[in-house]
Amino acid sequence: MSRLSFQIAESAEKVNSFIEKVVEINCEPQLLYRASRQIIDAGGKRLRPFLVLKSCKLVEGREEDAIPTAAALELLHTFTLIHDDIMDQDEKRRGVPTVHTKWGVPIAIVAGDLLFAKVYEAITSYTDTKHVKPKRILQVLKEISEATITLCEGQTRDMMFESKETVSEAEYFEMIRGKTAALFETSARCGGLLGGATKSQVKRLGEFGRYAGIAFQVIDDVLALTADEKVLKKPVGNDIREGKRTLMVVYALERASKSQRKQILETLGNKDASAEQIRETINLIDSLGAIAYAKKLADNYIKKAKKALARFPDSEDKEDLLNLADLIFARHH
Amino acid sequence: MSRLSFQIAESAEKVNSFIEKVVEINCEPQLLYRASRQIIDAGGKRLRPFLVLKSCKLVEGREEDAIPTAAALELLHTFTLIHDDIMDQDEKRRGVPTVHTKWGVPIAIVAGDLLFAKVYEAITSYTDTKHVKPKRILQVLKEISEATITLCEGQTRDMMFESKETVSEAEYFEMIRGKTAALFETSARCGGLLGGATKSQVKRLGEFGRYAGIAFQVIDDVLALTADEKVLKKPVGNDIREGKRTLMVVYALERASKSQRKQILETLGNKDASAEQIRETINLIDSLGAIAYAKKLADNYIKKAKKALARFPDSEDKEDLLNLADLIFARHH
Repeated sequence: MSRLSFQIAESAEKVNSFIEKVVEINCEPQLLYRASRQIIDAGGKRLRPFLVLKSCKLVEGREEDAIPTAAALELLHTFTLIHDDIMDQDEKRRGVPTVHTKWGVPIAIVAGDLLFAKVYEAITSYTDTKHVKPKRILQVLKEISEATITLCEGQTRDMMFESKETVSEAEYFEMIRGKTAALFETSARCGGLLGGATKSQVKRLGEFGRYAGIAFQVIDDVLALTADEKVLKKPVGNDIREGKRTLMVVYALERASKSQRKQILETLGNKDASAEQIRETINLIDSLGAIAYAKKLADNYIKKAKKALARFPDSEDKEDLLNLADLIFARHH
Repeated sequence: MSRLSFQIAESAEKVNSFIEKVVEINCEPQLLYRASRQIIDAGGKRLRPFLVLKSCKLVEGREEDAIPTAAALELLHTFTLIHDDIMDQDEKRRGVPTVHTKWGVPIAIVAGDLLFAKVYEAITSYTDTKHVKPKRILQVLKEISEATITLCEGQTRDMMFESKETVSEAEYFEMIRGKTAALFETSARCGGLLGGATKSQVKRLGEFGRYAGIAFQVIDDVLALTADEKVLKKPVGNDIREGKRTLMVVYALERASKSQRKQILETLGNKDASAEQIRETINLIDSLGAIAYAKKLADNYIKKAKKALARFPDSEDKEDLLNLADLIFARHH
């Protein structure tokens, strides 16, 4: 196990015990608490919490001061997953049934709402005001709320794309900036804030998070087309079936001939598309250079992310963050 | 117009302008912002904000310090209405189509989420830390989060009741304590906190809010069976059709003969029940004394609410709160 994998696992363990405390599975009504824990307990790498904790340590803050916020960002992420799965009508996530598939849409809606409320409960109840000034905590809460607003906007754009004929690359990036990058950015910024970072340090940490987050989403979209179903833990090509306008689809549509364009648009968002049809469309998208383009672009964002950390003095924590950026990119291998 | 009605209208106006600023209808994506504003713009008495502002003034606080939180509690209330309407499959609210009826379930989910995020954005961005200590603001945020958790639990219980044969009065009260009273209680407590109230004052304000909230819900349930459709702005007897276990249904089922019980249970939760069948069941529930019982009980809670304010020195603001309690009860006339 590499140093980074070990560190990620170690921070995940701390975050998980905290989550188990604030979202207690035996709380009443149990139906609600079990539904809320379903996706959390099914796995996940806890990358956002890791980013919070590492950013805090990078500026020489105390890790324990950032644990509630680290856990809160995982709760926030999970809440969006539960609601997104309803909207996208996804049936599987992390190898288990999605919350609405198992417990029905009403419980899934309220389970997501509960986790969202727990985000703020965790931070306001457990951040030690002896070590972190209340004004800093308020700043953290403000940033998290703004990120969530950006996230809702991104999710709406993502849905609107499905009924749009043409989506530009600029529109795509605006969408994922909201849908994914905002939470990575906020994780890094909040870690810095809780660790006592200066304004300029917070800004640079935010840039690191934002660029890493964009790369993460692009690579995630690549994996959704190319990965093995067992690794993916959900059906390959789901994005195509749901009509998602990923960077690759946007790129391919821009470069496709009239007949190729027709083929892609016929499969995109077609719930009844066969596995064969999906595979052919993925091959077509690949042959138009879209997958290579997406990887190249993700690589550029990883480079930008790493550059944002340049002015921090060398340290093991900085090394870990740089390796994290590489790990995000390396996932597609 | 009575002094109280005038005051409620005046505070609603302040709260509405604040909401129009923080949930700007022309924001992009407009689809999301229009959906979020739908129920807010359709009316509502803004009773929770009024309770925040009045509680703040009762302890001689500055009203302007409580405006963001007052508006936030209306946003929180609206977010729960939007999500509840999806869960209950209600088609009308405040005389307009519910959000999911007009824009679809996915947009309604995310519109609710947006308003929830705006709750925290409003308070953290606009509460003046020159006048309210950051620690107090953190306390307000904590209380609001805890109330929302209680609310999610109450909403889940409400849904679970629909598939339960027997619901006791105690279970009913536990449910509405979460579903309605928690938000009234928190509104009064937060108003006090922002106005600089002592611990004991906050506690008494909370009791006022809780008891008034319970009475409010009981009267709301009475109105849903007895009011004119034009006043109600939604179909009479919806609660019966949806199988809601209101206090009256609980009471009637406990006292019904075997054949009466059968009649009630056949109509309860029966989506295809005719208007005639609904009317007959309401008459049966009434003849069992359930409506009179609910009114009597609401009246007792109003008395308890007013008693909670007894130790506050007499003032115009206290008079307004006492009148508010009476107004909540008088709605059924």
